[in-house]
Amino acid sequence: MSIVITGTKRISPEILRAFAPFGVATVHEAQGRTGLLASYMRPIWAGARLVGSAVTVSVPPADNWMLHLAVEQCGAGDVLVVAPTSPSDAGYFGELLATSLAALGVVGLIIEAGVRDVAALGDMKFPVWSKAISAQGTVKETLGSVNIPLVCAGQLVHPGDLIVADDDGIVVVARGSASEVLAASEARERKEEATRARLKAGELGLDVYGMREALAKKGLKYQPAPAED
Amino acid sequence: MSIVITGTKRISPEILRAFAPFGVATVHEAQGRTGLLASYMRPIWAGARLVGSAVTVSVPPADNWMLHLAVEQCGAGDVLVVAPTSPSDAGYFGELLATSLAALGVVGLIIEAGVRDVAALGDMKFPVWSKAISAQGTVKETLGSVNIPLVCAGQLVHPGDLIVADDDGIVVVARGSASEVLAASEARERKEEATRARLKAGELGLDVYGMREALAKKGLKYQPAPAED
Amino acid sequence: MSIVITGTKRISPEILRAFAPFGVATVHEAQGRTGLLASYMRPIWAGARLVGSAVTVSVPPADNWMLHLAVEQCGAGDVLVVAPTSPSDAGYFGELLATSLAALGVVGLIIEAGVRDVAALGDMKFPVWSKAISAQGTVKETLGSVNIPLVCAGQLVHPGDLIVADDDGIVVVARGSASEVLAASEARERKEEATRARLKAGELGLDVYGMREALAKKGLKYQPAPAED
Amino acid sequence: MSIVITGTKRISPEILRAFAPFGVATVHEAQGRTGLLASYMRPIWAGARLVGSAVTVSVPPADNWMLHLAVEQCGAGDVLVVAPTSPSDAGYFGELLATSLAALGVVGLIIEAGVRDVAALGDMKFPVWSKAISAQGTVKETLGSVNIPLVCAGQLVHPGDLIVADDDGIVVVARGSASEVLAASEARERKEEATRARLKAGELGLDVYGMREALAKKGLKYQPAPAED
Amino acid sequence: MSIVITGTKRISPEILRAFAPFGVATVHEAQGRTGLLASYMRPIWAGARLVGSAVTVSVPPADNWMLHLAVEQCGAGDVLVVAPTSPSDAGYFGELLATSLAALGVVGLIIEAGVRDVAALGDMKFPVWSKAISAQGTVKETLGSVNIPLVCAGQLVHPGDLIVADDDGIVVVARGSASEVLAASEARERKEEATRARLKAGELGLDVYGMREALAKKGLKYQPAPAED
Amino acid sequence: MSIVITGTKRISPEILRAFAPFGVATVHEAQGRTGLLASYMRPIWAGARLVGSAVTVSVPPADNWMLHLAVEQCGAGDVLVVAPTSPSDAGYFGELLATSLAALGVVGLIIEAGVRDVAALGDMKFPVWSKAISAQGTVKETLGSVNIPLVCAGQLVHPGDLIVADDDGIVVVARGSASEVLAASEARERKEEATRARLKAGELGLDVYGMREALAKKGLKYQPAPAED
Repeated sequence: MSIVITGTKRISPEILRAFAPFGVATVHEAQGRTGLLASYMRPIWAGARLVGSAVTVSVPPADNWMLHLAVEQCGAGDVLVVAPTSPSDAGYFGELLATSLAALGVVGLIIEAGVRDVAALGDMKFPVWSKAISAQGTVKETLGSVNIPLVCAGQLVHPGDLIVADDDGIVVVARGSASEVLAASEARERKEEATRARLKAGELGLDVYGMREALAKKGLKYQPAPAED
Repeated sequence: MSIVITGTKRISPEILRAFAPFGVATVHEAQGRTGLLASYMRPIWAGARLVGSAVTVSVPPADNWMLHLAVEQCGAGDVLVVAPTSPSDAGYFGELLATSLAALGVVGLIIEAGVRDVAALGDMKFPVWSKAISAQGTVKETLGSVNIPLVCAGQLVHPGDLIVADDDGIVVVARGSASEVLAASEARERKEEATRARLKAGELGLDVYGMREALAKKGLKYQPAPAED
Repeated sequence: MSIVITGTKRISPEILRAFAPFGVATVHEAQGRTGLLASYMRPIWAGARLVGSAVTVSVPPADNWMLHLAVEQCGAGDVLVVAPTSPSDAGYFGELLATSLAALGVVGLIIEAGVRDVAALGDMKFPVWSKAISAQGTVKETLGSVNIPLVCAGQLVHPGDLIVADDDGIVVVARGSASEVLAASEARERKEEATRARLKAGELGLDVYGMREALAKKGLKYQPAPAED
Repeated sequence: MSIVITGTKRISPEILRAFAPFGVATVHEAQGRTGLLASYMRPIWAGARLVGSAVTVSVPPADNWMLHLAVEQCGAGDVLVVAPTSPSDAGYFGELLATSLAALGVVGLIIEAGVRDVAALGDMKFPVWSKAISAQGTVKETLGSVNIPLVCAGQLVHPGDLIVADDDGIVVVARGSASEVLAASEARERKEEATRARLKAGELGLDVYGMREALAKKGLKYQPAPAED
Repeated sequence: MSIVITGTKRISPEILRAFAPFGVATVHEAQGRTGLLASYMRPIWAGARLVGSAVTVSVPPADNWMLHLAVEQCGAGDVLVVAPTSPSDAGYFGELLATSLAALGVVGLIIEAGVRDVAALGDMKFPVWSKAISAQGTVKETLGSVNIPLVCAGQLVHPGDLIVADDDGIVVVARGSASEVLAASEARERKEEATRARLKAGELGLDVYGMREALAKKGLKYQPAPAED
Repeated sequence: MSIVITGTKRISPEILRAFAPFGVATVHEAQGRTGLLASYMRPIWAGARLVGSAVTVSVPPADNWMLHLAVEQCGAGDVLVVAPTSPSDAGYFGELLATSLAALGVVGLIIEAGVRDVAALGDMKFPVWSKAISAQGTVKETLGSVNIPLVCAGQLVHPGDLIVADDDGIVVVARGSASEVLAASEARERKEEATRARLKAGELGLDVYGMREALAKKGLKYQPAPAED
């Protein structure tokens, strides 16, 4: 059942660039509050951020052989999305693999497992989101697959899907929906810009969003605190 | 059972200012090792720190409607203390709500749930302690309550209680005990100052604290390591 | 069963210095992928790093009395390795104990429990790896032991073992194996240096490591993506 | 801060008996979906069930001295509700304490920590809900308190509150609300009885509860599956 | 984005019956060690077991409205597979919903969230696998979807996929692969039957499976224990 | 570093038999509250219980090859103690391995990982304590070791150590201390027998254990509840 799919479709560089200003929360909302990977996936250095086109890798537990194979399938603008076939926190990935990926223009790594050499990865500013940090070594004994659809941290990811990641987490957008989600992200951002200015000036969200009527209809009650408590 | 209590008592600005020099560990010890919220509550940026008067918010799971209501009850020196009625890691709070709170002089947020836009919150230096970081969107469908007593991360918090938070965690002090705990914190700090100087000079804690007799009475034994091991 | 063993053997200063360039991942691999403490042990400030000779401390849950005793057994180049006899996340250790240890030349702390005053510890650049951060105070009621073999975060540690810790975690090397593991670490580092240069130049790991034949033998298949997906 | 409060009020035997038919889910719903302890509290034997009047015990971590004190404050119809001042999974409670409590007519134990002798407790049919099962021994060194309000597994419990526990978990009802919640539980149970019969006969909940209009108003769409998938 | 897909394809009753003798471990191995849901999904009563055709339900956190809708789409031989759009341990499901499903011939429930009334569900012998047991009530405010592909406990499930569940966990088999996996399960079972008899007679697996040569080739070494240890 | 040590020493059948009446809590207390494995290790069927002589197995993550090797080293009265070199919840062990072990007189399994076929293991009454239940298959690619000292669930276990396990957990006793711990267990049991009778008759532990003076010395205060609360 092991296979390497070659020549998969990518998100176009134009789309990747256009997503650059948008954070994970914005994109997640813009596509109807879907696509978020589990919140135990965390960046290994604060401020990391990426937009990329997914190259997926299904790996055996504690065996990183397939990562070396996946590198060959990667190019500029890609992001490696790695999930083990059974849970593992071992350190699949470190400075040498990052050096190799960076040399090819790969923009980062999403891995539902462990990574190591995190100080060096931070120095290189190589963006990584992982489930664990662990120096635990892995073996190279068992095959997996590259560029098959897989579930990573609770979300289905196809090769060539759009990945956006930042300090808030990671969101996946299906390749076919990227343009539509881009437009919705832009619209949302414009709307928030106006709201932000009003809130900064001290207006209340209750008024900015016009919530008072709906709250009253739900039966909201106000009551003064007792004079002496 | 939903209600918004208005006009609750606050900790006075003088007391809030007087607590500024004291860390969570000091205040926790000064009130007899009580009042600490669970250690899974972590600051979203290193170095965050606050002293404030609690405005409490009881929220439904994955529904942040009540936060918008709570904002209206807040003023300078307040800190929002939020607990869901059943566990949720959703991202209840982000940059727009922080903008609104900051405009009103609110000093920070304690939330036993998730937050998002954490990079922006760090840039704004808006202090937040949360159970999770998650971009997960919330709905606005169900009411909760503002300024009722609630349990947040294992501690009972009343509106108007004193909250101190730093990199070590969060401690709550009952409003009626604030002056007494302040005096005890000052006393403890003075005592530690003297101890610190002696330890820095190389004296042992065993002697500084006079522990040797008590240890001997408990039956402590010393034994040299074998010559060859 | 409480005892303090005095005058235990140490790793020599020369060996400690010689290990300085090597990270945890390198040392762990160099001794055959063994010796790693559990990955829930994390540094309390990014960039912390140490090489030291273990002084072990077995402590009761939520009771830090033995830490004060352990200090007296410590000297330059030592690292305190602390494990509770039953799980506890209480804050056993803070700024005052760190001040005392630093005055004696101790290089850091490994503790399978909680610590506090983490902002101050970061300012002092005192390296600490812990299971939790918690301001929770401890008592001084029950004895434990110093310099007995103990299990810390899943690894057996003897007094006088070598400890290496960095952002990737913590590895223990038996005192008797330190020279051998040092040599293996140096060899591994030299080899990686060469690999790094080739990967940086864009060569693939598949070729650098000569993996293609073994992969083919395992039955690896390549398949082009369908023209239209 | 240690104290034993004697002679606290109890829930009357009539009220305790009247609650016997109602499960935790029913009581929790009947009081407006409040009062539920955290779901990590589990019965140590399947089928355990109790209704009792709370005797609260605040205990130090891994120290069970106060349990012996609490026994003296207990009588028929009481349930011990125990919470440690900082988290502990140690085995505070076993067969001997259960023997003592059973001799006094105490109906069970709720403890946010560990218990042991669980096979014997099951043989005795002594009901226990705990956070952990652990043989870990405890000490008798530090005082705590009996019959003070405390937070157990996320809920505030006062001495004399009503506790209902079964395979679904644990719910607390304030002493002053017991009669009102009893009436609401009875009403809910009657209503469910009628619903149960209709559902058993094959009617759909959509019709029994009259949900179709509200769903349509929310915009629910139906769509047939494609002929060939 | 809410939708109810009607008239989805099912696994045929013949296939469902044919899978009855096979456990989760067998089916999982027979389809190449894939398809297993996460191990935190546990049966609520020991000995529960089912084979069914999936009706999938995507639900909002702590909102069980869609379950009532899903019931209408269910028939004999179906199993409800439920996943929340963000994590929730609330009690979505209890005795009344089970009564309704049982009346329609539904064989059980798989839910990555909480359930309640577990004593009653056990008495009814209604099979349920869940992530949590919790009496926590849910609301009926927000729509979700029925019979869309979804990720449940880490596995992609399509409506009409085959689900096998027992005390070991849960495995999903794509509808199109069911016949092939059935044949492989039968073959595996036959082979194990023969092995079982030999092992029972005291033969060693090393010989039954013919492992000795491969082990020697890997470099396995035997060494007698020292005479005196 | 892989090795199989043959012909290791065992606990004598007489000692094993003599430990039969004693539970884990008793043995743990009798050896000074030491030797307990972590409480996440749970029996897979209620009422399981064993006393045995340890055969240790160090296994790679998700690779069960070494278990087959270990079987050959086992005999009557042995218990397999298995720990992975990095964390894994995979299902290393099932009915066939249990059949093989049972045929050789092995009394059970302790494994800090997953097992499967748990219904069959329960039917066979084969005692197993594990960290997880998972049908996840394992590979046979990498060597480990048999009968080397290892850390399992936080405790150091040597081949030939005594293992006692029951519903409360697992305790290890060093081979050399078995006779001494046996005597202490017998003494403790006798003492508890007398205490049990007095408690059953309604005497208070405060009096049976003579605690009142020590409590008063610690400063314990009693206070009647207010007349009206």
